[in-house]
Amino acid sequence: MSGTEQLDPGIAARLKRDRDGLVAAVVRQHDTGEVLMLAWMDDEALRRTLSTGRATYWSRSRGEYWVKGATSGHHQFVKSVALDCDGDALLISVDQVGPACHTGTRTCFTDELPVQTGELFQESHR
Amino acid sequence: MSGTEQLDPGIAARLKRDRDGLVAAVVRQHDTGEVLMLAWMDDEALRRTLSTGRATYWSRSRGEYWVKGATSGHHQFVKSVALDCDGDALLISVDQVGPACHTGTRTCFTDELPVQTGELFQESHR
Repeated sequence: MSGTEQLDPGIAARLKRDRDGLVAAVVRQHDTGEVLMLAWMDDEALRRTLSTGRATYWSRSRGEYWVKGATSGHHQFVKSVALDCDGDALLISVDQVGPACHTGTRTCFTDELPVQTGELFQESHR
Repeated sequence: MSGTEQLDPGIAARLKRDRDGLVAAVVRQHDTGEVLMLAWMDDEALRRTLSTGRATYWSRSRGEYWVKGATSGHHQFVKSVALDCDGDALLISVDQVGPACHTGTRTCFTDELPVQTGELFQESHR
């Protein structure tokens, strides 16, 4: 792979990046559908992900590219990638090896917040 | 509900907002797990979502709060909300009425991108 490769212009034209040039990447386990984590991609991270089949993100905190699993061994083998209707989010379906979260849990979404559910809402407002 | 209510300070302290004060909200159908869309929330959108059980977002394009389904009828009745490990993303589990996408499709993630899958990667690099 040369350093001059670029993301397919047809794909690049459909991305709606934020001020930092990033789109959100929702990551799910391809077969169970479990939502594992959310990360960020710029054009180059997406190009690497599509061309290598290994999930590659832009780390906003470290300011560098990050191949998921490169240090932890918790690889993400990419099965499919879909862009959303307005181009600001990607859905990455992967085969996740081990925990997706750096805290050691399978998914990063473990902090449940209290919610007044729809049923309660409907009852109390009827 | 008064206009002076605020998001629980214990929750607000755990949010890691972007420069626009927003966190990403991944929305999935609660029973099938299907990922429907990605939207954005500030503190007030999250407070309204948690306290009403109706998914409420901040529209970056329109610059206003947006109760999903208020105009389309495609309501999202919230079943649960989870914050991720670093506080910059929420997973909203909903009961979605009708299509989630404004284009009329069930999910917003319909634009499949070509990917060199992990199997092919493993074969070609062995």
